[in-house]
Amino acid sequence: METKTIRKLGGDGKISEFKLDDYMRLIKDFHGSTAPGLVIGGFMVDLALQNLPKGEFFDAIAETKTCLPDAIQLLTPCTIGNGWLRIMNFSRFAITLYEKQSGEGTRVYLDPSKIEAWPEVKSWFYRLKPKKEQNFQLLLSQIIEAGPGLCGMKRVKVQDGMLEQKTHGSKIALCESCGEAFKVKDSSLCPACSGESPYVS
Amino acid sequence: METKTIRKLGGDGKISEFKLDDYMRLIKDFHGSTAPGLVIGGFMVDLALQNLPKGEFFDAIAETKTCLPDAIQLLTPCTIGNGWLRIMNFSRFAITLYEKQSGEGTRVYLDPSKIEAWPEVKSWFYRLKPKKEQNFQLLLSQIIEAGPGLCGMKRVKVQDGMLEQKTHGSKIALCESCGEAFKVKDSSLCPACSGESPYVS
Repeated sequence: METKTIRKLGGDGKISEFKLDDYMRLIKDFHGSTAPGLVIGGFMVDLALQNLPKGEFFDAIAETKTCLPDAIQLLTPCTIGNGWLRIMNFSRFAITLYEKQSGEGTRVYLDPSKIEAWPEVKSWFYRLKPKKEQNFQLLLSQIIEAGPGLCGMKRVKVQDGMLEQKTHGSKIALCESCGEAFKVKDSSLCPACSGESPYVS
Repeated sequence: METKTIRKLGGDGKISEFKLDDYMRLIKDFHGSTAPGLVIGGFMVDLALQNLPKGEFFDAIAETKTCLPDAIQLLTPCTIGNGWLRIMNFSRFAITLYEKQSGEGTRVYLDPSKIEAWPEVKSWFYRLKPKKEQNFQLLLSQIIEAGPGLCGMKRVKVQDGMLEQKTHGSKIALCESCGEAFKVKDSSLCPACSGESPYVS
């Protein structure tokens, strides 16, 4: 298992204007392939970044676990590991960046009506033919030509319950079964030892 | 909201030997700070990478959503968006890399018994004093000095049900409410329109 070399985008990250080649290399290094969803995702994040409401600190939502979380992680400060990116697995191809105190945000989504003009994009998005029958270069070129023109955008307000909450008060203790440390809630066993373990040995 | 500049680690990624400075810059750029958990996470991923079972393609599990997913994303091919990294939120400070067909893997965890020798690490990990009273430089220096010596490691086998499954057959349709495309399961409404939406407007 080799580690990879990643050169993240610098500067303004405006993939839609002039740094497309850099972005294409970047996603291949980070994500492992030039995934069409991640190319569209770059335009989506870019569009949201250019249309943020007032504010300094923004959190992110990805409404699918496929591709879009990586576009957010590469183009914004929000990552899974720092807690500023949340994945809500609705299988909708959409992202939201929102001011973390007020919840005011910008949601960008793939607009089904706008896909109609791009047959290879439509075929890929709706899985109308097997992957091996897709014309990958045509698909990429249509995505790049269409760019943010595939997207819809609207202002949203995120529910108060979703906004930043401090959880620093959690008690850390050792699980009575595995002996490892975990955040205690209502059991002296960690979630893995309570039946959720993915391991058989 | 500024985008960030990321220079990912190249080469062998052995942070424990000689590329520590590069790794420290990398995590600051990607994650936003030199989080102690991500420094330890680098040693953990490195240890797992050096002790993989036979195989070519590996998936990853992070047993907490804090910090460790970013170490995996930076040092291995596995990301959230490409589906090779799964977060199981057990709040255990552990990672597993496993061969994606057989489930044979290596699990690395923070060993409570090994933390005892490093008081600032212990204090941080168990949250024994407020963050502002922590000595950040001492904490980092103890983490770096201890390195993989904070970790335990064992071979695991991941359950068959967790192993790679193709989901390409899902039908994509438009939600009857929002009109956006989603993967249809048992409702003509997408999960967001079925009551899970994080937005109030």
